[in-house]
Amino acid sequence: MGSSSDWETMKEAANIIEQFGVSFDKQVISAHRMPQEMFDFANSAADNGIKVIIAGAGGAAHLPGMIAANTILPVIGVPVQSHALSGLDSLLSIVQMPAGIPVATTAIGVAGAKNAALLALQILGITDSQVAQKLTGYRKEMHDKAVKSGETLV
Amino acid sequence: MGSSSDWETMKEAANIIEQFGVSFDKQVISAHRMPQEMFDFANSAADNGIKVIIAGAGGAAHLPGMIAANTILPVIGVPVQSHALSGLDSLLSIVQMPAGIPVATTAIGVAGAKNAALLALQILGITDSQVAQKLTGYRKEMHDKAVKSGETLV
Amino acid sequence: MGSSSDWETMKEAANIIEQFGVSFDKQVISAHRMPQEMFDFANSAADNGIKVIIAGAGGAAHLPGMIAANTILPVIGVPVQSHALSGLDSLLSIVQMPAGIPVATTAIGVAGAKNAALLALQILGITDSQVAQKLTGYRKEMHDKAVKSGETLV
Amino acid sequence: MGSSSDWETMKEAANIIEQFGVSFDKQVISAHRMPQEMFDFANSAADNGIKVIIAGAGGAAHLPGMIAANTILPVIGVPVQSHALSGLDSLLSIVQMPAGIPVATTAIGVAGAKNAALLALQILGITDSQVAQKLTGYRKEMHDKAVKSGETLV
Amino acid sequence: MGSSSDWETMKEAANIIEQFGVSFDKQVISAHRMPQEMFDFANSAADNGIKVIIAGAGGAAHLPGMIAANTILPVIGVPVQSHALSGLDSLLSIVQMPAGIPVATTAIGVAGAKNAALLALQILGITDSQVAQKLTGYRKEMHDKAVKSGETLV
Amino acid sequence: MGSSSDWETMKEAANIIEQFGVSFDKQVISAHRMPQEMFDFANSAADNGIKVIIAGAGGAAHLPGMIAANTILPVIGVPVQSHALSGLDSLLSIVQMPAGIPVATTAIGVAGAKNAALLALQILGITDSQVAQKLTGYRKEMHDKAVKSGETLV
Amino acid sequence: MGSSSDWETMKEAANIIEQFGVSFDKQVISAHRMPQEMFDFANSAADNGIKVIIAGAGGAAHLPGMIAANTILPVIGVPVQSHALSGLDSLLSIVQMPAGIPVATTAIGVAGAKNAALLALQILGITDSQVAQKLTGYRKEMHDKAVKSGETLV
Amino acid sequence: MGSSSDWETMKEAANIIEQFGVSFDKQVISAHRMPQEMFDFANSAADNGIKVIIAGAGGAAHLPGMIAANTILPVIGVPVQSHALSGLDSLLSIVQMPAGIPVATTAIGVAGAKNAALLALQILGITDSQVAQKLTGYRKEMHDKAVKSGETLV
Repeated sequence: MGSSSDWETMKEAANIIEQFGVSFDKQVISAHRMPQEMFDFANSAADNGIKVIIAGAGGAAHLPGMIAANTILPVIGVPVQSHALSGLDSLLSIVQMPAGIPVATTAIGVAGAKNAALLALQILGITDSQVAQKLTGYRKEMHDKAVKSGETLV
Repeated sequence: MGSSSDWETMKEAANIIEQFGVSFDKQVISAHRMPQEMFDFANSAADNGIKVIIAGAGGAAHLPGMIAANTILPVIGVPVQSHALSGLDSLLSIVQMPAGIPVATTAIGVAGAKNAALLALQILGITDSQVAQKLTGYRKEMHDKAVKSGETLV
Repeated sequence: MGSSSDWETMKEAANIIEQFGVSFDKQVISAHRMPQEMFDFANSAADNGIKVIIAGAGGAAHLPGMIAANTILPVIGVPVQSHALSGLDSLLSIVQMPAGIPVATTAIGVAGAKNAALLALQILGITDSQVAQKLTGYRKEMHDKAVKSGETLV
Repeated sequence: MGSSSDWETMKEAANIIEQFGVSFDKQVISAHRMPQEMFDFANSAADNGIKVIIAGAGGAAHLPGMIAANTILPVIGVPVQSHALSGLDSLLSIVQMPAGIPVATTAIGVAGAKNAALLALQILGITDSQVAQKLTGYRKEMHDKAVKSGETLV
Repeated sequence: MGSSSDWETMKEAANIIEQFGVSFDKQVISAHRMPQEMFDFANSAADNGIKVIIAGAGGAAHLPGMIAANTILPVIGVPVQSHALSGLDSLLSIVQMPAGIPVATTAIGVAGAKNAALLALQILGITDSQVAQKLTGYRKEMHDKAVKSGETLV
Repeated sequence: MGSSSDWETMKEAANIIEQFGVSFDKQVISAHRMPQEMFDFANSAADNGIKVIIAGAGGAAHLPGMIAANTILPVIGVPVQSHALSGLDSLLSIVQMPAGIPVATTAIGVAGAKNAALLALQILGITDSQVAQKLTGYRKEMHDKAVKSGETLV
Repeated sequence: MGSSSDWETMKEAANIIEQFGVSFDKQVISAHRMPQEMFDFANSAADNGIKVIIAGAGGAAHLPGMIAANTILPVIGVPVQSHALSGLDSLLSIVQMPAGIPVATTAIGVAGAKNAALLALQILGITDSQVAQKLTGYRKEMHDKAVKSGETLV
Repeated sequence: MGSSSDWETMKEAANIIEQFGVSFDKQVISAHRMPQEMFDFANSAADNGIKVIIAGAGGAAHLPGMIAANTILPVIGVPVQSHALSGLDSLLSIVQMPAGIPVATTAIGVAGAKNAALLALQILGITDSQVAQKLTGYRKEMHDKAVKSGETLV
């Protein structure tokens, strides 16, 4: 993520991945304040055995796109909700990438962070049947919880 | 895609995947006009050997999210540029998914279609070294073309 | 509605319909978490004697449009106010339906929920003179209350 | 509709209703230039045997809401695409009605006009089985056309 | 104003006009709940000696435009800040009037209410030198207060 | 107006005022390129017998507000349609004035220019019965034309 | 700045400049309430030895552009976050300047105020090596702080 | 600039700088396709004698901010008008920078490109009296042309 203040949003992603028992690493790498580290991270990510990268940032959010520009690993971008424009700036800065360098963008804020984790897991699940199985279980749980939630409206 | 009118945008995705020699299938499946087919497609996609799904749609674009709701394969959503609101409606309808069901959203229009193809290839490239190699080559070509384009400004 | 968290908004619709003595059913049917139930509900609604459907959802709100795609009953869509974008995403996801599958969209949030109920009653009122009479009474009450509210400005 | 310039959009609604063999009347009634006629029209609509009203207007579109304020018949509002703001102003002026007076809003422009007609027919179809049957046929045709459109992508 | 809930905003206008010693009348006239009263008010305003009308409303704000449609007195519209869309809907519903029926629109919310009062006074001040003189004094006071406010920044 | 390129829009205002036989003056006074002339114009406007000022400008449109800051005459602002943002920037730059200095804002573009002229005439019409009479005639003509336009829809 | 209420935002700029030991002056100069002072300030700024001007304002923010129109010194504009539209109006009013009169615009709110200070310092740093050196130090500190912030995520 | 397609916009900047006889270099450096070149350019810019950098880019425009992150020279960002969202995405991606790394943002499109050049010249003009003199002359010409343009309105 681009700043430690994004952690409140991004830890939701971490929680889900942890819950799936998939190993991951969490780091603050500011595109603007730590550009060299960002470059080094992105350029060596594949060699370091990383398979999917989740990058969350807010405002003029350049982190996801700049990481994507330096790796061919899939990069998932989470638009963190910004103060003045509620994340519309974050969203457009992340999703409107030019042809050639994709960023897989999710929703603004916490829902987007959670979905970034699930998307990463779904990507891994293509070839990892254990993750796939857990995802099917996760979906079933969500389904049952949604069904139940409707029984208690007052 | 949701309508044959989306083909003008989505064929850019098809062109790139073809160019990479990766097999794919292209279909019109309207979430609103062919809901049963959409369900059947999504529910059987994994069993049919599909690994990644690209769904392009415009306006109140429900196709990517509804397919995502019926499969644990990664779904990439392309917001097709709409007439009145230039694709802002398509973008928000696709990207603002609730927690639980991610859609990997790309840019509005042609750039998004191209990037959807590249994102799908990058996902496959995690475990398919041949695709990964081609992606590295594609990036290098883009880089060289960009460098060259700057030499002829007048 | 798409989630039990929408109930705070949608119960305003329920209150009004109750007040009119018209029978109705309230359910949580998530388009994304319970797609099969949603399909079954929509496909059997007419046969189950339902005359009008009110569907409230937020964010990438696919519920109203997907129900509408599976029934020829009139579907009223209520854009629930979302966190980051204040319901603009909900509104566009619901109202910008492609030609062929209409959703009768009302205002964002509580006013929209109330109006969805009244719109449903107005639809019933075309052929049900008792409902029509009550609607006329409801309008008169609103009118009188508005007139009175102006007398006490300080 | 609010102006004869809206006819290019609204005739799409007329075409569909005609095609269904349902009788209707088309009129230009400007909320701002013909306010008295608008009032008279709305106040006498129910007595004149009208069952559903479709009102299309652009910009600061007051026609649908003002008609709705003067009748308890269901009023469907079509946001005509405006010049500068592409119909976003029309949409918000029509859909954001205060609690008490609903307007069933459809999409901006031609798709909205078509859907207004279909929504009106769906409303009539609740109690008119012949209209309902035709709607089912219309849906089937749309479905088949969508299926076919996918077979010829090049 | 369109609702007693607008009074919190509109009383700022009343306060200024009062302070200038100009006589005025304040009323709740809902375009949607009291359409007949609105028509009667607008149609008889000139005959009742009214010179300028200030109309404040929120959401799909039809009051200023509908009053303007029924009188040739200048009508000033104040977009009251709405809940979901912060008054952007109110602003567009009021300012985007079609050619022929102008509404003099001011800013969203309290600043707009105050300016509506001042604009009305400036209109009267064209021919009423006493009002003009007071306006000049009011401006001078504002100026001096602004100058002073800068002296105490810490 | 702020630039000669605004004339295509603003001449619609001039045409109407001319048609009413009211004397007026048209000038290009750029707030940014001719600030001194703008100041002089505004400060001397009342002494020069001007009664109402119409100021049209686009983009970061400062002309209406800056003229308003230097006179107590009523200033009408016309947001000229801008290239990139279709006049949304012009509108917000003109209408969102701080408390104290009102600008009577009309619609974006040609409709706004026409309405600026009519608003100016309505302001004059408060005390000039001849103008008022002509306005009544103008409204009647508009009304009749609108009525007629509805008779020829095909 | 345009109002003493902008001070809460703009003092962040003052703090940074102070911290760099660069002399500066802070003033409230309202474009709308103190137009003459604004003109005098801008016209004499270069002669008074000022090198860079930072102007913060909200809503229909005319201060930065009007100062820029009266000096050839670089003017930095800070869009102060406004109440109803969260500073989108401030941003567009400042950044969308017509060709000829540039305003160097920064982000909405506090981040923009801080960056206005840093931008001014960077401009001075072109020719003042002491300021440049301090800027390099400031960047290093930011970098180290960002690195450290990542070590303590929980 | 980020792409040779931006040249049509950015050459307007080049033309003005050329006209002032100030030496400059024009390059295509894509943040996403040539990230290493971008880094090298930014990191060595000061040492290469560059004083001000103008960076134009569209869509998710990361070039200005990423260059700014790697130099303490002032960076001017020009939001190039994008296809779908008319440059609103470019603008927000450039201007909404986090505290610490400023980008001096100008208007969307051609006006912004011209103003970027003028802003760069104004920055140089602080210490280069010849540039300052030419800027004064340029302003005078603009002024005279604006005055003249008003004399020929028809």
